[in-house]
Amino acid sequence: MPTFMDVHRHMTGITPEQLRAAHQEDLDLESAESVHFQRAWADPVSGSVFCLSEGPSREAVQRVHEQAGHPADEIYEVPIEV
Amino acid sequence: MPTFMDVHRHMTGITPEQLRAAHQEDLDLESAESVHFQRAWADPVSGSVFCLSEGPSREAVQRVHEQAGHPADEIYEVPIEV
Repeated sequence: MPTFMDVHRHMTGITPEQLRAAHQEDLDLESAESVHFQRAWADPVSGSVFCLSEGPSREAVQRVHEQAGHPADEIYEVPIEV
Repeated sequence: MPTFMDVHRHMTGITPEQLRAAHQEDLDLESAESVHFQRAWADPVSGSVFCLSEGPSREAVQRVHEQAGHPADEIYEVPIEV
């Protein structure tokens, strides 16, 4: 299953509770798209959030994020990792 | 110790061997800056590489990458994670 890193921008001021809630929304919706969101990291100063996931396609990852109300601004398939 | 996500662009066509070699260069140099590079993910199509690290500052992370010959294009401090 491909791995993806997606990036959300304009989340300036995001709190730990908000990141946790947004991630939980993804987890609650992901199974319909056979996606699994593994981890997420947030920089509240620049408003950037990075999400690591596995799933069948970039479009499937985006559908989960859209259904959760927070579409990603960028989605990268990352087939290489160390 | 703060956590950072940094992004390298313009690495189109990067191979698994090249990512592994670049990451090893970071590991060989990181202790002088009290940084530790944990993981890295690469998208050879867009040429984007994401590195997750811990270290005392954004500048320390960049110094390791610079000494390794591959300065990051963006470095985000990510104090929030799930």
